[in-house]
Amino acid sequence: MVSQLAPRERMLMGPGPSTVPARILQALSAPTLGHLDPQYIGYMDETCQLLRDTFQTENALTFPVSGTGMAGMEAVVVNLIEPGDEVIVCINGVFGGRMKDNMQRAGATVHTLEIPWGKSFSLEQIADAVQKHPKAKLLGIVHAETSTGALQDLTGIGDLLHAAGMLLAVDAVTSLGGHELKVDAWGIDAIYSGTQKCLSCPPGLSPVSFSPLALEKMDARKTKVQSWYLDVSMLKNYYTGGGGRAYHHTAPINMVYALREALAIVQEEGLENRIDRHREMHLQLRQGLEALGMSYVPDHSLATLNCVTLPEGIDDAAIRSRLLNEFDIEIGGGLGQFAGKAWRIGLMGHAATQRNVTTLLAALRTCIG
Amino acid sequence: MVSQLAPRERMLMGPGPSTVPARILQALSAPTLGHLDPQYIGYMDETCQLLRDTFQTENALTFPVSGTGMAGMEAVVVNLIEPGDEVIVCINGVFGGRMKDNMQRAGATVHTLEIPWGKSFSLEQIADAVQKHPKAKLLGIVHAETSTGALQDLTGIGDLLHAAGMLLAVDAVTSLGGHELKVDAWGIDAIYSGTQKCLSCPPGLSPVSFSPLALEKMDARKTKVQSWYLDVSMLKNYYTGGGGRAYHHTAPINMVYALREALAIVQEEGLENRIDRHREMHLQLRQGLEALGMSYVPDHSLATLNCVTLPEGIDDAAIRSRLLNEFDIEIGGGLGQFAGKAWRIGLMGHAATQRNVTTLLAALRTCIG
Repeated sequence: MVSQLAPRERMLMGPGPSTVPARILQALSAPTLGHLDPQYIGYMDETCQLLRDTFQTENALTFPVSGTGMAGMEAVVVNLIEPGDEVIVCINGVFGGRMKDNMQRAGATVHTLEIPWGKSFSLEQIADAVQKHPKAKLLGIVHAETSTGALQDLTGIGDLLHAAGMLLAVDAVTSLGGHELKVDAWGIDAIYSGTQKCLSCPPGLSPVSFSPLALEKMDARKTKVQSWYLDVSMLKNYYTGGGGRAYHHTAPINMVYALREALAIVQEEGLENRIDRHREMHLQLRQGLEALGMSYVPDHSLATLNCVTLPEGIDDAAIRSRLLNEFDIEIGGGLGQFAGKAWRIGLMGHAATQRNVTTLLAALRTCIG
Repeated sequence: MVSQLAPRERMLMGPGPSTVPARILQALSAPTLGHLDPQYIGYMDETCQLLRDTFQTENALTFPVSGTGMAGMEAVVVNLIEPGDEVIVCINGVFGGRMKDNMQRAGATVHTLEIPWGKSFSLEQIADAVQKHPKAKLLGIVHAETSTGALQDLTGIGDLLHAAGMLLAVDAVTSLGGHELKVDAWGIDAIYSGTQKCLSCPPGLSPVSFSPLALEKMDARKTKVQSWYLDVSMLKNYYTGGGGRAYHHTAPINMVYALREALAIVQEEGLENRIDRHREMHLQLRQGLEALGMSYVPDHSLATLNCVTLPEGIDDAAIRSRLLNEFDIEIGGGLGQFAGKAWRIGLMGHAATQRNVTTLLAALRTCIG
């Protein structure tokens, strides 16, 4: 017989998932409705509207993809790319690299703009790449690089690309709900995020949004989208009401309940206040980590993910294991070229609190000191 | 401000999702762990083992895909198919048609074996198709056609295909946990299902299983799998422990809790008992529906999904809407060529009870009579 499920109540301060508040877990466990039930359609429509508010966009085509963040990346890629398309991908960490891999699998010829991990791109570097590859259909860039903790300034990029006839595709997995992110004002044409980061909802959905320009390009496709599951030409009938809410696939009903609740919490707190809170907690944590001899990897650090080099002589795995087993605190190890050399400490959503910062710093002092 | 989430407690007797028992909803809302937390890895390993037991297989590569049933179909297709491969797809309803569409998007040349909706395939028909298309790499067939309610006998097909050097791929979305389904004994090489049907877990995951022979074919691929998200060559490191549980994507943690609980319930009831229960409830419902003047669409009906033609003079939408609004009972309308002409009444998992059968029949008598 299977044992009783009894997961420990961890403080989740790694690169995601973040700690999920009781209120969202409760919404998650509300009675399951059918995916064509008018009551469910109402909840789903509200969820899409709340997503628009959080993305700061008017895009009609804004909805949660029925998969985790990487499914959102793939949804953006396979709907926008046709075999033979040229694209530019900006790489300064793991997730830029994944974007490249995804685009190649969709048949794109990928031109990469690569800079060292931890750095962010200047508008000049991007302008140069655009000039060098005038036939590119789009440029893909990561707003919040979860592997390095680098924040990418996106202002100005949309205008530059649109003037060159290109689209802007953005990875916002670790920024939505925790950093300033203005989809319309910044001219973003396609964007994907995750629920389990700054929204503090369990993993399982990927909010995406497409601009009217992106929709135009998709409507003009000559080939079918290679993924049936992620094909927006069919999904939009269900999510925006065209075609009479035609059944495509069974939506993850209970996950949508949870996302709706998570977004309601964002609305109640206020997006600006929430972003301020993330920044304040980051500054407090930063001071404490630096006092412990750690230094930040990126030039421009995210508030939501703090990537720091380990102090001299520290055993990465041993300390993280002690934090987990003695304190029930999860932080993340380094990813890719930073494996064993850095920690990634998340301050996301419900986990970005005074109590968590104080507790983590105290626990770290005990383990290191 | 967003209203309080308060979904009605529907009796879900459509084509899925089915009613989720309180015990599974409770598991769903347990505290979220990190996807690399040893405690979570333990729960996930248990879930995969319970899936093997339910699929009746020893296949090491048995796990829940992080998406709904249609993502499972796509996972099977994109991992097994390379551009230019020939395949045979058996079509007797909507889901066989979707399998064809999926395979074409993966670059396959699809030979179809089509029979009227509601019919099931004979072994002779399949043997003929195999003889006609000797170069096919695999044959895809639906065990439980959710659009017509037809059950497909799968015995003998695996042997026939293996003798011809082909693989057997099966859609078991509406049969896993409700019908006899013997992956190893029947020689099934790739199979996908859903959580929201006979397992009575919310939608959001798709259990899949691949035979060693299927794995061999995947290892011999010359091209990358077109979907990054569904690429088993990477996923298997996480799910079977190779490559040190390498991070691929953030698993839908809470959904896995729910699936584990759903499978624990299957184990407690006993797979045979559960299948018997589905058959008994089906026979009772069938008697009641036929007494009301309805007739079954398929020659060989599923126990889990009852597809019946409407009695003379019945207004499809009006009656279904009355069932929903007055009785909180959801049944499904017809799909594809049966839209407006048939109902699909699910008896799946937790919904396949004496109380539900009696209640539904009484409500139908009130609405029709």
